[in-house]
Amino acid sequence: MKLSAFDRSEHVYRNDAFVELVKDAIRFFHGTPVHPLPPPKSFAGTGVYALYYTGQSGIYERYGDLNRLAYNSPIYIGKAVPKGWRQGRDSDDVLRQSKELHSRLKQHSNNIALVKSLALVDFQSRFVIFEDAGSDMIGAVEASLIKLHKPLWNVALDGFGNHDPGKGRYQQAKSDWDVIHTGREWADRCVGAAKDKTVILKNMKAHLSKLSLVNS
Amino acid sequence: MKLSAFDRSEHVYRNDAFVELVKDAIRFFHGTPVHPLPPPKSFAGTGVYALYYTGQSGIYERYGDLNRLAYNSPIYIGKAVPKGWRQGRDSDDVLRQSKELHSRLKQHSNNIALVKSLALVDFQSRFVIFEDAGSDMIGAVEASLIKLHKPLWNVALDGFGNHDPGKGRYQQAKSDWDVIHTGREWADRCVGAAKDKTVILKNMKAHLSKLSLVNS
Repeated sequence: MKLSAFDRSEHVYRNDAFVELVKDAIRFFHGTPVHPLPPPKSFAGTGVYALYYTGQSGIYERYGDLNRLAYNSPIYIGKAVPKGWRQGRDSDDVLRQSKELHSRLKQHSNNIALVKSLALVDFQSRFVIFEDAGSDMIGAVEASLIKLHKPLWNVALDGFGNHDPGKGRYQQAKSDWDVIHTGREWADRCVGAAKDKTVILKNMKAHLSKLSLVNS
Repeated sequence: MKLSAFDRSEHVYRNDAFVELVKDAIRFFHGTPVHPLPPPKSFAGTGVYALYYTGQSGIYERYGDLNRLAYNSPIYIGKAVPKGWRQGRDSDDVLRQSKELHSRLKQHSNNIALVKSLALVDFQSRFVIFEDAGSDMIGAVEASLIKLHKPLWNVALDGFGNHDPGKGRYQQAKSDWDVIHTGREWADRCVGAAKDKTVILKNMKAHLSKLSLVNS
């Protein structure tokens, strides 16, 4: 069978509407109420969340400054997608909805609580819920928010969102986040060569000094 | 500081435009030309691709039937996102664009070529390129296409897209795909307890029998 000749331009999808739509969702996100970490009530749904640091001292003092008058600069952005999303099951509908987003925020709370050098009271959270077919927007909104804010724990200190690698996988290195924030037991089981703490701290300082208020 | 009381409805984003936009991109995708695997020429870009099986015998004969008159039912759908996408670097622009999508299709070709029971000539590919900020749509379009087509290698035979886990991680089990399609050397190094071949084949047959032509 003869297939058509190759012409790259036939494969390029163009539609400006998507950029505007993501901006609309991001503006909505920045208008959602801020809650303590973890949020005071359990709730159903999947979506995108941000963690803000508002402590006034320590290595994250810079975030305390940036967020002194408003929740301007998140330290971490993440997403909770419907279960089975990767396997292409149907988009979440309200009745079958899991509490994935709330669970994720609770997990993060538990992880922060394990770290002696961090206080949970210094963290706040904001989140947007996407329902039904809208849940397919979650990845794009998360990516755009990370691009916009460049949160330290996403782009310059990797590993906060990691899970226990489990049996047979402790040959890997402890993450940068775990080198700086000791407390997770499973991280201490990772025996691979971790990055040098002074190098990580230097990278963190360089990143923090570059952060400024963005038009959000 | 007093934070606002919790009201879930304040966090729910609603916008029907997104669903329509993804449908538009999917229709565009289904109108792109089909090429052999790997595509005849190298090209720049990131995006979403489908692999179609058109062989007339063997365990995938059902796909040969479904695709007898048109490219109706892909056996696999995947995506290639801009490098650094997870870390929130800027969306790909044309000048800095990698050849990620083409590389992925070449990798898949190489993997299929390693398998004695598969012939590369029985596979064709279709793909859509997303440029600039449009690349943030890639995840949503991939997820929607998987939901629509439920390709066997995405939803009922896991592991085709896996990479060599690397040193220190061979304790894990061989994937279902590798149990059925022997040929990848690194897969044979995985010593964990793999699923039973007869069980996997049964699941595959059940899935194939449920596949029908969707309105694409």
